Amino acid sequence: MLKIIMSQHDSIRAVEWKDNHLVLLDQRKLPHNEQFVPLYSAEDTADAIRNMVVRGAPAIGIAAAYAAAMAARKCYKQYPQDWRKRLSAEIDVLQNSRPTAVNLMWALKRMCDLADTVDGDPEEPLLALAQQIHQDDINANYRMGELGSALIQPSHGVLTHCNTGSLATGGYGTALGVIRSAYSSGKIEHVYADETRPWWQGSRLTAWELVKDKIPAHLLCDGAAAHLMKLGKVSWVIVGSDRIAANGDVANKIGTYSLAVNARYHGVKFMVVAPTSTIDLATLSGNDIPIEERSQDEVLNVNNQRIAAQYTQAWNPAFDVTPAALVDALVTEKGVIENPTAEKIASLMAS
Amino acid sequence: MLKIIMSQHDSIRAVEWKDNHLVLLDQRKLPHNEQFVPLYSAEDTADAIRNMVVRGAPAIGIAAAYAAAMAARKCYKQYPQDWRKRLSAEIDVLQNSRPTAVNLMWALKRMCDLADTVDGDPEEPLLALAQQIHQDDINANYRMGELGSALIQPSHGVLTHCNTGSLATGGYGTALGVIRSAYSSGKIEHVYADETRPWWQGSRLTAWELVKDKIPAHLLCDGAAAHLMKLGKVSWVIVGSDRIAANGDVANKIGTYSLAVNARYHGVKFMVVAPTSTIDLATLSGNDIPIEERSQDEVLNVNNQRIAAQYTQAWNPAFDVTPAALVDALVTEKGVIENPTAEKIASLMAS
Repeated sequence: MLKIIMSQHDSIRAVEWKDNHLVLLDQRKLPHNEQFVPLYSAEDTADAIRNMVVRGAPAIGIAAAYAAAMAARKCYKQYPQDWRKRLSAEIDVLQNSRPTAVNLMWALKRMCDLADTVDGDPEEPLLALAQQIHQDDINANYRMGELGSALIQPSHGVLTHCNTGSLATGGYGTALGVIRSAYSSGKIEHVYADETRPWWQGSRLTAWELVKDKIPAHLLCDGAAAHLMKLGKVSWVIVGSDRIAANGDVANKIGTYSLAVNARYHGVKFMVVAPTSTIDLATLSGNDIPIEERSQDEVLNVNNQRIAAQYTQAWNPAFDVTPAALVDALVTEKGVIENPTAEKIASLMAS
Repeated sequence: MLKIIMSQHDSIRAVEWKDNHLVLLDQRKLPHNEQFVPLYSAEDTADAIRNMVVRGAPAIGIAAAYAAAMAARKCYKQYPQDWRKRLSAEIDVLQNSRPTAVNLMWALKRMCDLADTVDGDPEEPLLALAQQIHQDDINANYRMGELGSALIQPSHGVLTHCNTGSLATGGYGTALGVIRSAYSSGKIEHVYADETRPWWQGSRLTAWELVKDKIPAHLLCDGAAAHLMKLGKVSWVIVGSDRIAANGDVANKIGTYSLAVNARYHGVKFMVVAPTSTIDLATLSGNDIPIEERSQDEVLNVNNQRIAAQYTQAWNPAFDVTPAALVDALVTEKGVIENPTAEKIASLMAS
């Protein structure tokens, strides 16, 4: 049974296991509709990941883990002799649902490793592992919240990008978890949140979380962040990550890299907050991280209304890579690395 | 009578004098509706400027000049003895319609200076001056197109921000004029245009002009520009300006400054294209340029549909300031200044 820790400034859960199935808060419908989607199969969960019913690297990993447990249950019921092979096909579908966030592959590998060794009906042990992955993620977020908050000197404001809160994780959040912790301990007075085009994770999701948890904030257009820094309104940029390479390069939502360059230029510190499940030692550098390009419709249309001129084309990379050299602090649940390098990361992961 | 020069890749006029009144292409309705608004008074023109029926620093100046001519006509007809005083009140309304673009003040000052010296009915001379200001702007844009294009080595791509084309000027454009010229002479293969939140000048206006003139282009989200530069897709960022201070600091559409910082970091060149009417020697540095903050509704809503979470606030500065030190080339109709300084600008303006 999942232990629910919820502190002040933490009131939302987007991924939940209910009786015998997965329930996701549909993030495409937020902030205006809080609609929950019940899912009973790996295939439907893969669709939900692809279509961004659930998004955020850790939340995708957790949803996929639950989906793998549901797939194992179905395969074992239908093909008790042959279930491992059948499960493997279902895992492949989940694996291919989105390419950049490595937590997806990480969670599925843990589920597969357990499935390989389990005797008899896999349902109970696999579900228990999925719940453990979920619980560990929440615990990691609380721990990162403390560690990240400890880096912040009492300051007026911080800037964040995309959504890295309860909606993007098992609960509490990575970068937004640090912001929740730092706000709770009086270290931050005000949060600035990039609207985060094209999917509006800032406007729709982060702003929604901040309003719910009564943390004072302003949205701004992504292009206004440099001007904000120049005015001295923020002392840290705090972001999450979808994959961190062995050398410390950080893939995250498109627009992050621009913030990192501007933060360095303005003497603003740049913090990346991610559980170690986001660190991929098999990916040597940022150049090796696959960057998903999504449909140009996300740029050309808003709410199914065409914004751009007819016949226009758009380029829509969903992520970019910030080189390790621009990262001042990498906060994980295992500890903080300042100015990350391959050596420091290898040593953290081995600890 | 306004001489119409229109070359290849130049097919749009957004500000026109027709018989006895001003006609503006309503830029709020683009790209889906090409709707023209007839204006007969300074008051209505000031509203049109405030509400962005017309926008773009040079276009605002030209519209205001025509509006001043219409105001002089009305004042002289109604108060033949007292028309100068009455005109001054109408000019004040125009002057206060938008604070950042200095071309507005520049054009109105020229109109006032002439009004002060004119004998008898001011209609004809003031209208002639407004038409001269319009014609001079188009000529300046063609000249800047040549000068700016000469700086570009044959390259694959350039990046632009906001709209600086025919819609933003008397015709042809400033930064987009350079892009038109450089494309015509085969120096540019591809244009990347920032969508330019919150008002979508890139998606709605620049993309519309580029499609109309058959110049190959892709839109991108403002936050993706750094990633584009990192991939080596562009050799120049080319932008316009709303006001250039005596020391070369450049106020332009919010998001420009972020591009300048990123351009310098990536070794991409940064070009500002603006007629000398945009240079304000009375403003010593960028710190002295008033930055308009517009309604937060522009950030929170799109097409009157709420995007952001309820109770969210937004910060919406319409412009930012790029320090002269980040400008590689300032292109004016009087010549090009590389690495602009107060001395070089003073000398250009005195020439």
